[in-house]
Amino acid sequence: MEKLELLYQGKAKKMYATDDPDVLWVEYTNQATAFNGEKKERIAGKGSLNNRITTLIFELLKARGVDSHFIGLVSETEQLVRNMDMFPLEIIMRNTAAGSFAKRYGVEEGASLDKPILEFCYKSDPLNDPFINGDAIVALGLATEEELAEISRIARAVNDGLTDIFSRIGVRLVDFKIEEGKTRDGVILLADEITPDTCRLWDLRGGDDGIAHLDKDLFRRGLGSIIPAYEEIHARLAGLARSEGIAIDE
Amino acid sequence: MEKLELLYQGKAKKMYATDDPDVLWVEYTNQATAFNGEKKERIAGKGSLNNRITTLIFELLKARGVDSHFIGLVSETEQLVRNMDMFPLEIIMRNTAAGSFAKRYGVEEGASLDKPILEFCYKSDPLNDPFINGDAIVALGLATEEELAEISRIARAVNDGLTDIFSRIGVRLVDFKIEEGKTRDGVILLADEITPDTCRLWDLRGGDDGIAHLDKDLFRRGLGSIIPAYEEIHARLAGLARSEGIAIDE
Repeated sequence: MEKLELLYQGKAKKMYATDDPDVLWVEYTNQATAFNGEKKERIAGKGSLNNRITTLIFELLKARGVDSHFIGLVSETEQLVRNMDMFPLEIIMRNTAAGSFAKRYGVEEGASLDKPILEFCYKSDPLNDPFINGDAIVALGLATEEELAEISRIARAVNDGLTDIFSRIGVRLVDFKIEEGKTRDGVILLADEITPDTCRLWDLRGGDDGIAHLDKDLFRRGLGSIIPAYEEIHARLAGLARSEGIAIDE
Repeated sequence: MEKLELLYQGKAKKMYATDDPDVLWVEYTNQATAFNGEKKERIAGKGSLNNRITTLIFELLKARGVDSHFIGLVSETEQLVRNMDMFPLEIIMRNTAAGSFAKRYGVEEGASLDKPILEFCYKSDPLNDPFINGDAIVALGLATEEELAEISRIARAVNDGLTDIFSRIGVRLVDFKIEEGKTRDGVILLADEITPDTCRLWDLRGGDDGIAHLDKDLFRRGLGSIIPAYEEIHARLAGLARSEGIAIDE
């Protein structure tokens, strides 16, 4: 497999073409951003941690029946994924009120929700990624009714899988953001990444008062270095993967 | 029926108690507001027009199988309605892109939508009525899953009824906002008002270029007096009601 031209530079990843049109080469960078890029920093070790964390999670989800775009690791900061037509949607699942949700609806951060909440934002930099509902997604042609049903089913299956994974390693899965795409043969799959950049993860093992963040809120809110937290998540996930007989070629 | 104490003063209506706990006395005022009350004006004749327009629409909808909280007219500016537990939701139906929707998603005003869009906002002045989706409505306990299904069914039935009504009088129903409530015996009904204050109505009979607004956008956007437009809507609706044998006691 050959790494060819840079196709897209995201906030924390670079995507390259390969000599196979169905395969992309992803490089996880050390860049951390928040508030739509207003806060920005390079943090040594972050790219490697996220590349390895998302790999563990994709493999742990696969063992739970949830497939993804992940093909395999290339290096400590690089992996191969399936090239798909991406839906222009940020797909958000929430199990506990936090962040923008808590602020938007005047709910205390940490309040349990009666049921998991599935939210969508329309990915558009000029529009600032506005909140969008299912009717509007279909009416604007961002996905068909059938695609939206499958996108939603997958999001809920990912939530079930992740909730199980994180509960086994003493972490509360508060919320997370994923993306999904469609392969050339019409299969919709989980894509992008699942890392402490894209999840809110609260430690259930800390004995102290308050919330022990193991996620990007440490950076977003200036609460401390993210590296020890990301290392902790990586170590616990690696332990779980070993206990389930999942071999990761790192 | 006796008019008792003022219970609630809205932007364009006052609600009074009556000697029957199941009945409210509504007074339509001449106040016009826009942009959450930032723009405000008194417009002579508006209260009377809206009181009579919403009455005609409630009766025309009833003839199409859609019931509402409306009981009867009391005077030119007053009517009796059923007292219900209101859902704290603004229920919005859109058939054509306009206003905040067009701006939010970068769509041209007037663009047709592939299907009618049902949107909800959580009615809360301190939170500025945020956009909310079905999952969050249920998770925050604003309505149960079953209530939300019925609220949505009614909203779509109102849209079907209104689309028929307005197409018969040469008006394009672009979008509208309603509210719904639940009676003491558990029946969910259309409430609030349906007037050119709460609908976007574009004249299909004008021969000129551009959009001929017959609604509050005239006030919101400073395009001219609303009174002739509201009078036109009233006259056309009254003609339709007469042709359908609906007697309004004005």
